[in-house]
Amino acid sequence: MKQSQLFTKTRREAPADEVSKNAILLTRAGFINKEMAGVYDFLPLGLRVLNKIIGIIREEMNTLGAQEILMSSLQRKELWQRTDRWDDAKVDNWFKTQLKDGGELGLAFTHEEPISNTLEQFVSSYKDLPFSVYQFQTKFRNEARAKSGIMRTREFIMKDLYSFNIDEAAHQNFYERAKESYRKIFNRMGIGDKTYLTEASGGSFSARSHEFQTITDAGEDTIFITNEGKKEAVNKEVDDRQEAGHKAVEVGNIFTLGTKFSDPYLKFKDQAGKEHNVFMGSYGIGPARVMGTIVEVLSDEKGIIWPKEVAPFRVHLISLGQHSVLANEVYQKLQAENIEVLYDDRDARAGEKFADADLIGIPTRVVIGDKALESKMLEIKERNSEDAKMMTLEHLINELSKS
Amino acid sequence: MKQSQLFTKTRREAPADEVSKNAILLTRAGFINKEMAGVYDFLPLGLRVLNKIIGIIREEMNTLGAQEILMSSLQRKELWQRTDRWDDAKVDNWFKTQLKDGGELGLAFTHEEPISNTLEQFVSSYKDLPFSVYQFQTKFRNEARAKSGIMRTREFIMKDLYSFNIDEAAHQNFYERAKESYRKIFNRMGIGDKTYLTEASGGSFSARSHEFQTITDAGEDTIFITNEGKKEAVNKEVDDRQEAGHKAVEVGNIFTLGTKFSDPYLKFKDQAGKEHNVFMGSYGIGPARVMGTIVEVLSDEKGIIWPKEVAPFRVHLISLGQHSVLANEVYQKLQAENIEVLYDDRDARAGEKFADADLIGIPTRVVIGDKALESKMLEIKERNSEDAKMMTLEHLINELSKS
Repeated sequence: MKQSQLFTKTRREAPADEVSKNAILLTRAGFINKEMAGVYDFLPLGLRVLNKIIGIIREEMNTLGAQEILMSSLQRKELWQRTDRWDDAKVDNWFKTQLKDGGELGLAFTHEEPISNTLEQFVSSYKDLPFSVYQFQTKFRNEARAKSGIMRTREFIMKDLYSFNIDEAAHQNFYERAKESYRKIFNRMGIGDKTYLTEASGGSFSARSHEFQTITDAGEDTIFITNEGKKEAVNKEVDDRQEAGHKAVEVGNIFTLGTKFSDPYLKFKDQAGKEHNVFMGSYGIGPARVMGTIVEVLSDEKGIIWPKEVAPFRVHLISLGQHSVLANEVYQKLQAENIEVLYDDRDARAGEKFADADLIGIPTRVVIGDKALESKMLEIKERNSEDAKMMTLEHLINELSKS
Repeated sequence: MKQSQLFTKTRREAPADEVSKNAILLTRAGFINKEMAGVYDFLPLGLRVLNKIIGIIREEMNTLGAQEILMSSLQRKELWQRTDRWDDAKVDNWFKTQLKDGGELGLAFTHEEPISNTLEQFVSSYKDLPFSVYQFQTKFRNEARAKSGIMRTREFIMKDLYSFNIDEAAHQNFYERAKESYRKIFNRMGIGDKTYLTEASGGSFSARSHEFQTITDAGEDTIFITNEGKKEAVNKEVDDRQEAGHKAVEVGNIFTLGTKFSDPYLKFKDQAGKEHNVFMGSYGIGPARVMGTIVEVLSDEKGIIWPKEVAPFRVHLISLGQHSVLANEVYQKLQAENIEVLYDDRDARAGEKFADADLIGIPTRVVIGDKALESKMLEIKERNSEDAKMMTLEHLINELSKS
């Protein structure tokens, strides 16, 4: 994409009403816009990153064999009354609304109740199990505090996965596979080395759970590392004995639900005709929270440093001075190789272009200036390195296709 | 995908609480689930179709040069008060909700106000124009009636596009290109020959508009065809003189907004430094409404007949009797060619498999039965034809890659 066509612009100054690093950098770079506290829009560069994160999660969910669906945000009161989660005293972050023709509705903060109810029609025998479903769906949570940028918001897309098995043993097998899937997701997103599988309590969902916690000072939780090699930890909320804690943010969680939510709806008959409740699990990741965490963990004083798999573009091509003919040619050739390029074709000073490139944080910068024209070599600099290299376009394409 | 793994099942009986053909067929075939009147979940087959429709629209929006964003559903009261669209007497289908820490919010029924407000920071000069932005975003509308299945719902993903130009002449140029883009979208979705560019009133949005109306008895509008060759019509609401009317459903609309919504926010300076309001247009398509319309228009007494570009799978492979070895082989080979296949590997009678295939409506049915094993030829039948053909797998792959 040509940067001259991009409607967003970077800003030098931090927005006055933001305190979190992720919101400041993402706003300055033109990735997001704040509608109100805890509610953000995703602008073109920001939506590209969000969709890359969603794409990685979707691939891993499909590899796990889960089937994608999309449930509604508007939810019926009755379904939540049956499990005693409708009352604001029981769940303190509901948004509720009214139907014109009467009746109160909830705005989805999660989907255990509706998914169990929906699936009832498809499950009657052990032959219908096991299976798992997931969605990328907008959740609403009426948060009192909302000062962590896109890491804790009142409206966000969540990936929620639900598993349905005949018993705890079968569930445990899937649960272990889900753990590995989550590990892979966070590794691909570039935060695997800072992310710990953490024992935690289950909140209003279940007795026990595991969280994936990424170490950052921006986190709201405290974890104790129990095994550095295996990247395992325990949340302070369940084990307060240890001393050396780290601040961390929960980027994912996995719950053993058991039969709590299947009890009103989801039953199956075994081979002998005996009825049982389906054994459930649920597994969440908030793509925008992950995006915010990546910014918190991978940025420097100049701006963001996106990992390759989630970057809005793979290459930032910068044309300096009067070299647009050569730059256009490089742009066309990179695009022909299916390499995603943001091409800074603006009529602006070199210093401004470099500062914007550092702020936006695309992994590989390619500069077309006097040096390039003289030598037929391109000046290449990785965002996470100080050193520039000179190489031919063919060499660059070869390097990019390897990574 | 193997049909034995799909968690949904077809049903023989129509759901008791549905009157519209699209809801009945899509529910029977396992594409959707009703949460309440006017609120539906998309199950795996249904989400695949919805995403195909979204994919076609996204391609055409990108071709038009529009930039994709994602705005919030939660909206600030103040933005709507400025244009006098907050009051329920002015807009009769608002859903509203309350923040825990005080203050009323709206749930998005459209985005003219928030988008104008968001863009204010990026537009100051004529050099910042023209541009256009679009999103696939969840809208909420508090409909009193909701009896048209997925064609009129209380919660739905909408593609809304907004254009920003320096004046009416520049706007008109974009508007004409948007018309062509919409034509192409409905042609690709298989309903182009029944869809008319229709003059209409602008509702609460603008003085004038054009609708794309698809002729079907399930429609709520009446249109008069003014030019059959050019596929042009006029809505009864603006021209009641003519006699031969057709029932039709609005599958898309395009509005010239002018400066109504830019007036409070979006201004630019021309070359002489004089200030003007930005000239706006907005352009909507509801992917689920299009999906429902396709079912209304393209179905028979046996089930749905999906056009190729929006079908959940391209091929329905059906294994009969004891021929799973050959069927597995065909399944692998089709997948290796990147052809999307639903493989009916279930242990079920031929009659049940054929009835399900007709109901689900995948374009090309491939049967592996005794005939196939004897002759090494596959039995191929298009969903929209009565005649079966015998051909080799290589021939089939060749035919599919051409279409």
